[in-house]
Amino acid sequence: MQTMTFTQQLLQYIPFFYVIWSDDLVTISEINVVQNTIEKDQTLSREEKDTLLSWLNPDKPPRDSEMKQWKHTISNSNERLIESETYPLTSFSNRVASHYHGPVDFNESLKHIEINLGIQPNHYNHLFDVEVKHASTSTYYNPKELDQILKGKHANLIDAFRETLNHSIFKWDIHRDKEDFRNIVLDQVKFLAGKGYGAMAYPEAYGGNNDMEGYAHMFENMMYVDGSLTIKFGVQFGLFGGSIQKLGTKEHHDKYLTDTGKTSLLGCFAMTETGHGSNVRGIKTTATYDKATDQIIIHTPGKNDNKEYIGNALHSKMASVFAQLIVNGKNEGVHAILVPLRDENHELLPGVTVKDNGYKLGLNGVDNGKIWFDQVAVPRKNLLNKYGEITDDGKYRSEIKNANKRFFTMLGTLVGGRICVARAGLAGAKFALTVAVKHALKRRQFNDSIKVQEDLLIDYPSHQLRLTPLVASAYVYHFALDQMMESYCDEKQPDKRVIETQVAGLKSIITWYANNSIQECREACGGKGYLLENRIADLKGDVDIFTTFEGDNTVLLLLAAKGVLSDFKAEFNSAGFTSVLKILGMQLNNTLTTINPVYSNKVDKEHLYNIKFHKHAFNYRTRRLTYTLAMRIRNYIKQGMPSYQAFLKVQTHLLTLGKAYSTELAYNTFIGKIEQLSEDKNKALLFKQGTLFALHEIRKDAEWYLEQGYIGSTKSKAIRQRVERLCTELRPHIGSLVDGFGIPEHCLTAPIAH
Amino acid sequence: MQTMTFTQQLLQYIPFFYVIWSDDLVTISEINVVQNTIEKDQTLSREEKDTLLSWLNPDKPPRDSEMKQWKHTISNSNERLIESETYPLTSFSNRVASHYHGPVDFNESLKHIEINLGIQPNHYNHLFDVEVKHASTSTYYNPKELDQILKGKHANLIDAFRETLNHSIFKWDIHRDKEDFRNIVLDQVKFLAGKGYGAMAYPEAYGGNNDMEGYAHMFENMMYVDGSLTIKFGVQFGLFGGSIQKLGTKEHHDKYLTDTGKTSLLGCFAMTETGHGSNVRGIKTTATYDKATDQIIIHTPGKNDNKEYIGNALHSKMASVFAQLIVNGKNEGVHAILVPLRDENHELLPGVTVKDNGYKLGLNGVDNGKIWFDQVAVPRKNLLNKYGEITDDGKYRSEIKNANKRFFTMLGTLVGGRICVARAGLAGAKFALTVAVKHALKRRQFNDSIKVQEDLLIDYPSHQLRLTPLVASAYVYHFALDQMMESYCDEKQPDKRVIETQVAGLKSIITWYANNSIQECREACGGKGYLLENRIADLKGDVDIFTTFEGDNTVLLLLAAKGVLSDFKAEFNSAGFTSVLKILGMQLNNTLTTINPVYSNKVDKEHLYNIKFHKHAFNYRTRRLTYTLAMRIRNYIKQGMPSYQAFLKVQTHLLTLGKAYSTELAYNTFIGKIEQLSEDKNKALLFKQGTLFALHEIRKDAEWYLEQGYIGSTKSKAIRQRVERLCTELRPHIGSLVDGFGIPEHCLTAPIAH
Repeated sequence: MQTMTFTQQLLQYIPFFYVIWSDDLVTISEINVVQNTIEKDQTLSREEKDTLLSWLNPDKPPRDSEMKQWKHTISNSNERLIESETYPLTSFSNRVASHYHGPVDFNESLKHIEINLGIQPNHYNHLFDVEVKHASTSTYYNPKELDQILKGKHANLIDAFRETLNHSIFKWDIHRDKEDFRNIVLDQVKFLAGKGYGAMAYPEAYGGNNDMEGYAHMFENMMYVDGSLTIKFGVQFGLFGGSIQKLGTKEHHDKYLTDTGKTSLLGCFAMTETGHGSNVRGIKTTATYDKATDQIIIHTPGKNDNKEYIGNALHSKMASVFAQLIVNGKNEGVHAILVPLRDENHELLPGVTVKDNGYKLGLNGVDNGKIWFDQVAVPRKNLLNKYGEITDDGKYRSEIKNANKRFFTMLGTLVGGRICVARAGLAGAKFALTVAVKHALKRRQFNDSIKVQEDLLIDYPSHQLRLTPLVASAYVYHFALDQMMESYCDEKQPDKRVIETQVAGLKSIITWYANNSIQECREACGGKGYLLENRIADLKGDVDIFTTFEGDNTVLLLLAAKGVLSDFKAEFNSAGFTSVLKILGMQLNNTLTTINPVYSNKVDKEHLYNIKFHKHAFNYRTRRLTYTLAMRIRNYIKQGMPSYQAFLKVQTHLLTLGKAYSTELAYNTFIGKIEQLSEDKNKALLFKQGTLFALHEIRKDAEWYLEQGYIGSTKSKAIRQRVERLCTELRPHIGSLVDGFGIPEHCLTAPIAH
Repeated sequence: MQTMTFTQQLLQYIPFFYVIWSDDLVTISEINVVQNTIEKDQTLSREEKDTLLSWLNPDKPPRDSEMKQWKHTISNSNERLIESETYPLTSFSNRVASHYHGPVDFNESLKHIEINLGIQPNHYNHLFDVEVKHASTSTYYNPKELDQILKGKHANLIDAFRETLNHSIFKWDIHRDKEDFRNIVLDQVKFLAGKGYGAMAYPEAYGGNNDMEGYAHMFENMMYVDGSLTIKFGVQFGLFGGSIQKLGTKEHHDKYLTDTGKTSLLGCFAMTETGHGSNVRGIKTTATYDKATDQIIIHTPGKNDNKEYIGNALHSKMASVFAQLIVNGKNEGVHAILVPLRDENHELLPGVTVKDNGYKLGLNGVDNGKIWFDQVAVPRKNLLNKYGEITDDGKYRSEIKNANKRFFTMLGTLVGGRICVARAGLAGAKFALTVAVKHALKRRQFNDSIKVQEDLLIDYPSHQLRLTPLVASAYVYHFALDQMMESYCDEKQPDKRVIETQVAGLKSIITWYANNSIQECREACGGKGYLLENRIADLKGDVDIFTTFEGDNTVLLLLAAKGVLSDFKAEFNSAGFTSVLKILGMQLNNTLTTINPVYSNKVDKEHLYNIKFHKHAFNYRTRRLTYTLAMRIRNYIKQGMPSYQAFLKVQTHLLTLGKAYSTELAYNTFIGKIEQLSEDKNKALLFKQGTLFALHEIRKDAEWYLEQGYIGSTKSKAIRQRVERLCTELRPHIGSLVDGFGIPEHCLTAPIAH
């Protein structure tokens, strides 16, 4: 038999060579590793070394007949690969050699190759025509450690909160009737308030911890119970309470904040109108100061000017109403006024009309309603007057003279809510991914005709590709949002405008990501994903609206893009504009000079996995899009086009910039956080999530990079292959990765996840 | 004033020149039109002609100062553009000239340019700093005519059916309780059966019309009432009745088909099992022939082998059960057997267990359940025996000797159901698009500070871009599915395998398209889209599962791709394989020779709008993907990899091919249908839908085309710009386009659509 022509030393190498040459992605540096090891392997004769090295020549790969001979040699040994061994390929090779030559020593050099090539059984188990018992998931990483890293400095709070969610009041169930559902959710909110969680973000004087970051983490974990609970909680404490805390002054705090935190005062946040959703500045509700009575008169002027979609509208005693404040006949712009809605018997007060919005696609445990005001008078002191007040002598006064700036300062205080919405969306994605991955680690379908057992869903490359980049993105967005909330809460950064731009962008891309992920998970679970009991269906309904509320994603991306352009905007129509463009043009050219053909076709693993490459690619895109955008706008304006029209004409360009900017921001922020971690295997694993995220995102926009010549065809294909390969590499750990999200067992009720 | 330096003849041309040079997309052929017309314009002096021609030189575009001067001249006339005029730009130019020079004759040459450039007011209305009253939609096209074309030869049936849907039993309402909802839907199904619609596809002898094509159109229109109605209808008449019709023989037809069509016999289609969804061949339920009693014993062997997700399971008297047929100890493969489930009192028969599947994301009006059989005996004659029977002397007999072929023949008869699912998905998209477009034609948000009225949503480029390609795709898919059903019903084509491959692909891309469209519409309608009353929410829940049932989309795409490869597959592992590859390689090379740099950078409108370009681009992609796929598989197999593993390794490549193939098929089929229409403006409008579809699809896969060098950067950008421009061009007609879907007013209950 031909196989016996191999010495036992050579034979041990054959499974390795078979793996190396069956792989489409063998790189020069990988070959170098093998070459060096062979040279140093003292068990080999010079002749054996030369034979092996001749098999390694990339210019002269083994012929198919040679590959087949190797394959037969391996198959005929009847040895089986055992994936759970410490060095599975080395051990397997050893057994193959032993089959032909009798007991053979374990070759340390092969172990060295196995470790340094970083190849794992799932790379090559398909190559051997032997029956392999798949371990459904590896235990190399400890999910508890990952969870600990994700929780960071908030671990104690989060652990305690998760334990609180183990109470029977939070037991998941199907609630089809909206009245029942709303009452259950109201009870849950009150329960959490009773435990002190409602006031979490308020000052200590009002029962709180001043802990907005902790609040955001709670918000995320609440999603594991139910979306309606999360949103109702957010309306009561974040929006209603938040408007008192951030737009009101001490008098308001003293009078309302403690009660709000305890839910003894239920309130709503009445901003959106039927006719005005995204365009808050255009709302029509008026708040007219009447000097004679020293009161403010709240009024809904027209048919479509009612407050719309107001959460908590049916349970509330009071509303924080946004209206055009008119003092002495002058419109001072949008301000918030506290307006009592109901009396102690929960009867509507005179002049107030509330109507139920009815059933929705999701969040049916939240009581959304429409509100009309018919000349409703409230005391002057009900104006939340931090940024603008009516003085005792009936005059309007504000520290911020510019009405525009005043408006945006008021809205800016609500940016925290947007971070929380993104967090809640992320939680929805984490939950759905956990269910889908756990299902894929159990569910089998189809098989090779010679195998007894069908294959696990997760062992299909298409299934790995549909889920793994989404899991990696969840890690990236988690840390990005952590950092964003930290910056938002940082008192040393009084100018919140940069953060506003950043949050606008992140909220958009993360809530879109969340919806896509949940949909992908639904489909990945087939019909099982469609049953309410498996939880993905509700998430789909609930998270859907996150792309719209707290700022429509499209409008927010335009805002983000305009933020990026803002340094330019100030220069529009002025001579200085051209010089700014010139400076940016120069910087861009500097960047561009580095894109030589060698760079744009660099495809080795070291380069593609390098953070510098990812950062450069993201940064190049943002800058290039900014530059071309500014140029287009400038040309339009030079031709005499009004700037509103010019911006309309470049709208799709703005959206592209908004997305590019936000993706870059998420990645950079993530890397910044991970770099601070102590060195260990978990840190390496998290970096790998970053790599998959970055390559996946670059891949998604490959057409743009190709158009720009930033990457060439070869590189574009290499990136696609690397994404697929990373998904396969992470296959043994995907179970640990979703367990690392730390979703409590008592929340994870989906039967298919068990 | 400078403006007076223009003669009245020149002045009339100035708005045209301002439009031409403000446009990023002016092409050589467009310039030619203008040049020729100027030469022929007898109202111009030679000097005026030369001036005008000098302004047309693409190498020497007007300076910004010149553009500004034109702009001022136009603005200072204080004339307004009236978009509803027959030749708005010519009339406007005439008024501008008249302002400075007194009454001026209408210039026919300008009219000629306006028509031949094909520019419409919405291309240029942003250019003039004048207030324009937007007509919300043009009346140039008649939606009734479009509807008539879509209905084709089925117009009478569809009109009558739509009228039937005007009955109060179909009035839309919110049904939260599944028992109530299911009863209402059952009554609706019975009502339609009473009108004869249930038997539509059955032979006349059993109360039908033998009209499967008409059935598909009804199916689509039923979606305008409710998804649950559509699916329950499909289960009763299409799946249960269809299995009797297509897998049974005359005895079964005589005994059951008339009753099924009338709903006096309610039945279900019990194929899927908990453990086996996509892999039907692996189902575990057994049907063992017992010679002693001449009966077939139906049995559920294991825990996960119950029938799962069976529609109509709670209302049915009988099930068409798919099981492994065992005769004389030999497994003859999957067959269908009619099994009574309940007696006349609707009590379950001995050995039968049914459990409700509970609440789902959507389709809660359909009673899905699980079914277990414990040694249930039925007469031998209950075997649906068209393709395999048990003879009177207790032996298995089939005309189709190959068990594999037999199985696929049986499944193949159910392909009609897949077409219907795609149709229903398409109907969901049409409905959502109609609601979203009508909303966008009314809803205003934001404005230029100088304008009184806010802008319509549809006038935002991003909004046009998100909806218009989806509307165009609906037209393409409509005709593609029409043709597919026609081919499926064509008795002259006995080999249905090609159609199976085609339907597998189309069902996947169309149901995915439907879900994406519905989601886009939900977001495009903001919070209003989230309310059940506006109908999009239910569509989202209902249509979601269409990507999974009647064949999971991923599995179907793999099937389609393998169909494309099937000619190769027969050659695998044989010497002939190489020669087949060579032939295909040669053909590909022939195709490739046409991709010279001129072609890959051809960006003029004539080329990009040319059907030949679209067909070539789609065909090139399919062929190239097939070729590279075949090469990869061949190499793996030559290296000794088992073919199952080789196919697993190229799984994502297969999916890409499946999508490419299906998109090409949809476009070609659409073009084939449209070419048969009589020449008129509607035909041109439909071709334009095809152009937008094609460019949008090529654009979505631009990275691939760029990687292959099929298109260059310039062309890729030009395609993107053309897509945006086509959306803008279609803006005045988008209302007519959605009205053309013909959704009856009595079904279109969404308040935001009115």
